[in-house]
Amino acid sequence: MASSLLHCSDKLPFMDVETILHMKEGLDETSYAQNSSLQKRGMDTLKSLIINSATDVYISQMPERFTVADLGCSSGPNALCLVEDIIGGVGKVCCRSSQPPPEFSVLLNDLPTNDFNTIFFSLPEFTHRLKSAAKSDEWGRPMVFLSGVPGSFYGRLFPRTSVHFICSCSSLHWLSQVPPGLFDEAKTPINKGKMYISSTSPPAVSVAYRRQFQRDFSLFLKSRAAEVFPGGRMVLAMLGRQTDDCVDRRTTFLWELLSESFAALVSQGLVEQDKVDAYNVPFYAPSLQEIEVEVRLEGSFSLDYVQTYEINLSSSGDAKEDGRTVSMAIRAIQESMLSHHFGPDIVDALFHKYTQLVTESMEREEVKSVQIGVVLTRL
Amino acid sequence: MASSLLHCSDKLPFMDVETILHMKEGLDETSYAQNSSLQKRGMDTLKSLIINSATDVYISQMPERFTVADLGCSSGPNALCLVEDIIGGVGKVCCRSSQPPPEFSVLLNDLPTNDFNTIFFSLPEFTHRLKSAAKSDEWGRPMVFLSGVPGSFYGRLFPRTSVHFICSCSSLHWLSQVPPGLFDEAKTPINKGKMYISSTSPPAVSVAYRRQFQRDFSLFLKSRAAEVFPGGRMVLAMLGRQTDDCVDRRTTFLWELLSESFAALVSQGLVEQDKVDAYNVPFYAPSLQEIEVEVRLEGSFSLDYVQTYEINLSSSGDAKEDGRTVSMAIRAIQESMLSHHFGPDIVDALFHKYTQLVTESMEREEVKSVQIGVVLTRL
Repeated sequence: MASSLLHCSDKLPFMDVETILHMKEGLDETSYAQNSSLQKRGMDTLKSLIINSATDVYISQMPERFTVADLGCSSGPNALCLVEDIIGGVGKVCCRSSQPPPEFSVLLNDLPTNDFNTIFFSLPEFTHRLKSAAKSDEWGRPMVFLSGVPGSFYGRLFPRTSVHFICSCSSLHWLSQVPPGLFDEAKTPINKGKMYISSTSPPAVSVAYRRQFQRDFSLFLKSRAAEVFPGGRMVLAMLGRQTDDCVDRRTTFLWELLSESFAALVSQGLVEQDKVDAYNVPFYAPSLQEIEVEVRLEGSFSLDYVQTYEINLSSSGDAKEDGRTVSMAIRAIQESMLSHHFGPDIVDALFHKYTQLVTESMEREEVKSVQIGVVLTRL
Repeated sequence: MASSLLHCSDKLPFMDVETILHMKEGLDETSYAQNSSLQKRGMDTLKSLIINSATDVYISQMPERFTVADLGCSSGPNALCLVEDIIGGVGKVCCRSSQPPPEFSVLLNDLPTNDFNTIFFSLPEFTHRLKSAAKSDEWGRPMVFLSGVPGSFYGRLFPRTSVHFICSCSSLHWLSQVPPGLFDEAKTPINKGKMYISSTSPPAVSVAYRRQFQRDFSLFLKSRAAEVFPGGRMVLAMLGRQTDDCVDRRTTFLWELLSESFAALVSQGLVEQDKVDAYNVPFYAPSLQEIEVEVRLEGSFSLDYVQTYEINLSSSGDAKEDGRTVSMAIRAIQESMLSHHFGPDIVDALFHKYTQLVTESMEREEVKSVQIGVVLTRL
């Protein structure tokens, strides 16, 4: 206990998000690959928007090499989905106009700790699917050059003026760091018992989170501005809010339940309260307006389309099944950070409790999350 | 036994090199990362040739983006060595001429089963080293964009006309497949008891190996010809021969000892003879002349420099230490293929015997291998 208190009061707990945050690697039961169906549904909502935006860019520029990047590709079946759809879409356009397809350069980005090996192992299947699709659509087999680009998208990833189209799904709600400002001058945590903005959090918590989002999203735009060809586009999708209120229940609800799960573990003596007090997630769900302001301030992109989408997490109607799906998804996303802060031993107990709480909530009501989709064009 | 005979006679054993061959992943005692000092010595021999060739290309073209590829980068400490030296070399040139350095695009290639994760985990250190080097040499911090490119270099890897400089060390002696033609019309193995060309092999064995090298190296050159800018260069280093004789002892010796180790396991009943008879390595150590012929026939590159280098494997003078180093290196290279063909259980016993045989040989004589280095310029 003494060492933990020392940890909190003498030295702020530090989490280097870039070296710690990663979706659970591999292919086993708790892996992100096995637990990313919710993200897939988010992607599917925007699928036609992404394909149409990409083909529009291709048609307007007709480059011999069409360079496409997926930022925050993660691992598992979702990683290659979007690029496969884009290649198919452009291929069909070429076929209709009797043009040969371009060479595709596909850049898959995520943090250096992402499980790129699992994506690369699945390349032979990916190539096979592309070949079959090209055959059935009667356009020539495309030349696709795929690479993995490790690094934070809150900074430069690609050479200057080298990318035509960028998509990013379910990634930009992750901040580059836990916001500074969640500890007071005496280095005491100010967001006690909570891990994200909550109705009981002092106002300084939402201010700290909003500021971190502004800094991060602005840096994201500036970095992409250097990389994207004039006329190139980005389709970005992230969890967000439909209201100006940071304590929008749809974005805070699942974090609240995780805090409640921790409270249960504290009461059982499995976790120390001060450890929980010092834990905050590097996450922010912005509003449409907050995104628009940063785009305008940065100035390199026009905002062509914005939309919010509700995603029903209670989709099967079976609270037990839906509760497990949501809990396993949050586990696959959060396990790396939780293990770093609390040690790996508490993870099973925590998600046992969490599954129970999520399921109980779903028995009472439909649980929904909100996704924001935006299309930006490089001026 | 019956099933194994059936395996050999009714259906040729097939090894899909692209999905099986990889240097031993991770960082533990038997990993390639821990057992690649011999390859490092090979690289060091050619280090100044590589740096000078790369800086010559940079000086002659002065591109804003300088794109460099390492083919067969593997994982472990060697993977980033060459690109680090190249970036440093070009940085110094820019500093001397008071030019800002270019943006560097660094493409690290290996087969999809390579352990790219381990390379990417080490990126923060790599970036730190580059920063320190730039500071001490007083040139600006370079912008380096690194990506992993999974795929076989016996085929296209990069978009058309997109790479300025390519290097490849200790990789091109690996063939794309075990040569067809190592089984007779009755599908019986013709290279019994051996796994590479041996003095007791029938002539058809060396013919099969040479033909596979010709097909592969020709395809390699054709693929790179499409990718490299006119005036761009490649420095290639691989194990090779100083003579026309395919049974050159310096290239066959270590394989002979591995065959002898297998013979010991067969006599102990640990491995079946027909399994050994059906195993051949996808390896070929060409002569200078064989390389020259393929370069001339393909026609897109001029051959500017060729050299053979002897590498003394008995370098420490302690046969026990050197024997272990060589044995562990061969294990890190061969384990994926051996495990696929024989099952993983024999590997420890095999390399126990192999270490003993290599050490005994080194007690009797100095063991050397031969490396060929060539510099090619895209016409």
